[in-house]
Amino acid sequence: MWKVIGTDMNTELDCLPCFTRQALDALNLVTSDDELRWRVMREALRAAAQFSSSQQPPEMAQIIHSIIREATGNNDPYHHLKKSSTDTALRMESVVRPVIENAINPFHMAVRFAIAGNIMDYALTSKWKAIDVDDFIEETRLQPLCEPHLRRFEQAVNRAKSILYLADNAGETVFDRLLLEQFPPGITTVAVKSGPIINDATREDAIEAGLGNVAELIENGSNAPGTILDQCSDAFLEAYHTADLVIAKGQANWETLHRDARELWFLTRVKCPIVADRIERPLNSWQIIHHPGVQP
Amino acid sequence: MWKVIGTDMNTELDCLPCFTRQALDALNLVTSDDELRWRVMREALRAAAQFSSSQQPPEMAQIIHSIIREATGNNDPYHHLKKSSTDTALRMESVVRPVIENAINPFHMAVRFAIAGNIMDYALTSKWKAIDVDDFIEETRLQPLCEPHLRRFEQAVNRAKSILYLADNAGETVFDRLLLEQFPPGITTVAVKSGPIINDATREDAIEAGLGNVAELIENGSNAPGTILDQCSDAFLEAYHTADLVIAKGQANWETLHRDARELWFLTRVKCPIVADRIERPLNSWQIIHHPGVQP
Repeated sequence: MWKVIGTDMNTELDCLPCFTRQALDALNLVTSDDELRWRVMREALRAAAQFSSSQQPPEMAQIIHSIIREATGNNDPYHHLKKSSTDTALRMESVVRPVIENAINPFHMAVRFAIAGNIMDYALTSKWKAIDVDDFIEETRLQPLCEPHLRRFEQAVNRAKSILYLADNAGETVFDRLLLEQFPPGITTVAVKSGPIINDATREDAIEAGLGNVAELIENGSNAPGTILDQCSDAFLEAYHTADLVIAKGQANWETLHRDARELWFLTRVKCPIVADRIERPLNSWQIIHHPGVQP
Repeated sequence: MWKVIGTDMNTELDCLPCFTRQALDALNLVTSDDELRWRVMREALRAAAQFSSSQQPPEMAQIIHSIIREATGNNDPYHHLKKSSTDTALRMESVVRPVIENAINPFHMAVRFAIAGNIMDYALTSKWKAIDVDDFIEETRLQPLCEPHLRRFEQAVNRAKSILYLADNAGETVFDRLLLEQFPPGITTVAVKSGPIINDATREDAIEAGLGNVAELIENGSNAPGTILDQCSDAFLEAYHTADLVIAKGQANWETLHRDARELWFLTRVKCPIVADRIERPLNSWQIIHHPGVQP
């Protein structure tokens, strides 16, 4: 077993109202049975009452969503939302692909779309709806993103002999594929969740997005949001610790990995004020974060 | 004992995240001891998990605030906020009084300020801060308020032989006094809470606001927000059921009384989307609501 290093992204008091809101939003997506919703919300509140401040927020999400799955008897409540996110992204591909290919730097533009795709997230809100493609492309082109970080990230990718890419949400994975097409061929493995959690991509979702055509697919052994290393399989940990470069998509990966010993690159939108505070970057900004690794 | 009629303002699922947020806001006002805050939040979450949808939201607030009072050993955590609200309102009086006296209809203008004062509320937010007096007066003059309701309310007051006025928050009570000065003299009783709850006015707060100079003061026998009749004293219920006219300030009074058998006039700001939905009025609007009474 690999040694697991602690994180300082502990749960804050401000996470508690947010957990309660997330639980209700998730539940509203899954069932309109009021008696069932009350029963599940009571269970979620009791679970939140037992949660330790030393645990990471994604662990709480894992607990809440396991309560919802069990109570509703629905093992993948976000199944149709994942499908429709992937379908939406696949339909956008024909418009997005030429924007990337005709860009001055296609790699940089593909990074932008990979972060743009991180909007397809049902963890913090159930409100994300239809995307206007023109607005989406315009925002993706213009969103402030640190240019020196973009260049350093490009260099790191081009120097790497092996890359492990930790995927985040279904649908977002289509844009991940467009980025992976810019990587040196044959060196990338994409890790997905081993079981449904919110709208995070599983193997099935990744295959639907075409990720299997550009990378090897592996599962991480866990159904937590982000990457909780002590829940991950030995096979995943082997890949994680031996890859030349690890790229982690989405905020939950930052929450769960940003204190780990190994070097990482995070690509994410900043969606939570507590995370924004920790990384000292604006809420709603797009970030490429280089984590040089922490010595144990 | 008086017969108590049920209410349909039951607790909604959407109240649960709001309770959690309110509990934390309240706690942040009272203590910065993180361990204590976690302990109280856990207790508040467990209490919320036990709460019944057939109970009224102000009952939940009563429970949460009793947990906070007990855990912090502070029987009146909002004491200094109530003092400073009253002080602020008393300082504004010299500016507000001539605006009322010089208005075309001083009674109507006084009603406006009584509703304006309902902003001094720490139940739903801890964020209310300094008031800019000029902005406050300007908003009070211009805020849409149903003119026919204003006229009917004025007529009802002038026809009444006895009035019971259910006060809401400390500080707001100064503006209540300016309204009561417009009432026929010697016919009004003001009811306040029997114990501290959030920043609701108690007898002491009402006296500081000068309400004792324009009306008889009584306590309602309860320390719940609003007026939960089955917690109220027989003396209060006697006054409530025999008064010619009952005027109830604030949203919690609407929540707890709007299905009662007796006729009531509510003066309030609409602060909660669920209440706004029930009364079919916009969120953040100011309302004079005539409740004709419900036959049991």
